Amino acid sequence: MLSQHEAFARIRLLRSPNIGPVSYRQLLARFGTAAAALEALPDLVSRGRGPYRPAPADSIEREVAAVRKAGARYLFHDQPDYPALLAELDSAPPIITCRGRLALASAPCVALVGARNASAAAVKLARDFGAGLAEAGFTVVSGLARGIDGAAHEGALSLESRPTIGVIASGIDITYPPQHVDLQERIASEALLIAEQPPGTEPRGRHFPSRNRIIAGLALGTLVVEAAPKSGSLITARLAGEAGREVMAIPGSPLDARALGCNQLIREGAVLVQTPEEVVELLQSFTGAPRSRFRVSESAADFDYAELATAEWDGAGTEAIAALLSNAPVAVDELIRQSGASAAAVHMALLELELSGDLERHEGGLVRRSGPQ
Amino acid sequence: MLSQHEAFARIRLLRSPNIGPVSYRQLLARFGTAAAALEALPDLVSRGRGPYRPAPADSIEREVAAVRKAGARYLFHDQPDYPALLAELDSAPPIITCRGRLALASAPCVALVGARNASAAAVKLARDFGAGLAEAGFTVVSGLARGIDGAAHEGALSLESRPTIGVIASGIDITYPPQHVDLQERIASEALLIAEQPPGTEPRGRHFPSRNRIIAGLALGTLVVEAAPKSGSLITARLAGEAGREVMAIPGSPLDARALGCNQLIREGAVLVQTPEEVVELLQSFTGAPRSRFRVSESAADFDYAELATAEWDGAGTEAIAALLSNAPVAVDELIRQSGASAAAVHMALLELELSGDLERHEGGLVRRSGPQ
Repeated sequence: MLSQHEAFARIRLLRSPNIGPVSYRQLLARFGTAAAALEALPDLVSRGRGPYRPAPADSIEREVAAVRKAGARYLFHDQPDYPALLAELDSAPPIITCRGRLALASAPCVALVGARNASAAAVKLARDFGAGLAEAGFTVVSGLARGIDGAAHEGALSLESRPTIGVIASGIDITYPPQHVDLQERIASEALLIAEQPPGTEPRGRHFPSRNRIIAGLALGTLVVEAAPKSGSLITARLAGEAGREVMAIPGSPLDARALGCNQLIREGAVLVQTPEEVVELLQSFTGAPRSRFRVSESAADFDYAELATAEWDGAGTEAIAALLSNAPVAVDELIRQSGASAAAVHMALLELELSGDLERHEGGLVRRSGPQ
Repeated sequence: MLSQHEAFARIRLLRSPNIGPVSYRQLLARFGTAAAALEALPDLVSRGRGPYRPAPADSIEREVAAVRKAGARYLFHDQPDYPALLAELDSAPPIITCRGRLALASAPCVALVGARNASAAAVKLARDFGAGLAEAGFTVVSGLARGIDGAAHEGALSLESRPTIGVIASGIDITYPPQHVDLQERIASEALLIAEQPPGTEPRGRHFPSRNRIIAGLALGTLVVEAAPKSGSLITARLAGEAGREVMAIPGSPLDARALGCNQLIREGAVLVQTPEEVVELLQSFTGAPRSRFRVSESAADFDYAELATAEWDGAGTEAIAALLSNAPVAVDELIRQSGASAAAVHMALLELELSGDLERHEGGLVRRSGPQ
């Protein structure tokens, strides 16, 4: 169990400028605790712009009070109450907030996602799959959006056990979309509601892909019920595939534009499913080797963050790495090769650049210089 | 080139009692020519029922006259004008008859098949795929049935080059179904019509699976447009898969009963396709290793028929094999193991039993005793 003091320091560290899941974990690895990292940071990072300033303690006090007021609690990625499958993600959110019955996340989970403007037939399918999978003992995870998401939740809520998890892109105390005020409150009070963003955060475009990775990460498999090509639902499905989880889709006629996303997914390797029973059969036999076959994007070579504990913090090295960066994303592995420096040294340099606001991280271990050249 | 005499003998041999594609080929391997086989047969086979009587020569003369009258010609499985891909099938028909432009069978072929009682949307898809694939340089093969088959032919016939092949379950001079009298005549005169059964043969239920293997065998890949589970179209698709060809299907909603067969095929490993371009892309890159993944049924171990040329014809051995048979189909390989005899001796025994009317052959190298025990 984390002490109150360290829990507070962790929240404060994650809310500090230029800190994301990667730099957060690297700082914990480097300094052992968030409290120690917060103490060290102002002296370590400046790059000629004055000392680094972590998030003010009083704003964190207000955040913690808001989480309490909302009836929610914090979960930390390395603690036993954090959902186990979600913790396996490379990009697992370091801290999430939740309201409701956390035990629902310990049951086998299946994600049901799809279009907001879904056809009536697909909405009915989503409700039937939600109910059928809940009946079979699965917790139904979705994103509380209109259309497929809402119908999937409602299907699961039709059971007395209410086995469903809503993952929202806003803070835990913000309701979105307006049509789902009642549904969100019902899920929070009778099932489980999860949010990554701090309380008070209104949902913005950039929050949705981030939310989608939590949906995919909680579940053994993700089923797309109906989706357009290039939709958020397909992103969720691909994230599930990259995480080594099962990816499933319900097909439709090529003459139905709303089926094209699902058909495309099946062409890419998702398993075609037609009934809840087929999903159950697939997930009950899931042993970590999905039957769906996605071309998984090349991920960065494994690097053990523990090496950061003893790595050199070297300003000249940081500038050498900075000189290799441009606005075009490049793989960290490529930087290690080109610089000739050790992996630990390059990670340290990138960490310093990120904390200084000079680096952006992208999916798949890519980084780029942020701002104008 | 076959002599007129040997061509006649081959037709007569194939039309003789208890002779199928396997025994026909074995007899050619044993005796070198059909003429020699016909000469030897009456003395070889009797099993206590009097001498074996080949088909009467005059009935073959009438058949040849009928084929000529229909404007058709014969093709023999080992001759250069026989369609090359079809010849690769283990069960390639030893003799077929055809009317029209044989060159169409030398272009890359794609089979389009599906339900007779197809939906209007699927019929339109079949026509569009037929036209699109013809435009891309493919010959469209189908079975001249109502629904999907007819629409696929019509799509290809909309091009000036008329690249389509109709494979019928009847004799070359019989039209079926009545709705397609004009279409069949048009295909015969402007494109290519193929029949395996002798002229005058009305189509019967048992002829259709046999016809379907020719459709699948002519083509690099088979596309099922719309089909019910357990339909003839799915048999054609599975035959294509077993022959190592590409298998494709157009999906549909699980709420649409007419899509269930195609969806099932995709679950079994067929490639989901939505446009003619996707079919073209798949088949143009086809190199003999299909992208579709079917569980291919275990086939009989390879046996070189040439060994039959010198094998012993041994009545006692035949009775020993006969004693191992029952009404339940058994693999020839299993008979070889259990009998302890050589493969050639067992094949000889089976050939004698088949010619005597005491053996039926089934798909996948299975045989059973025919008639009551």
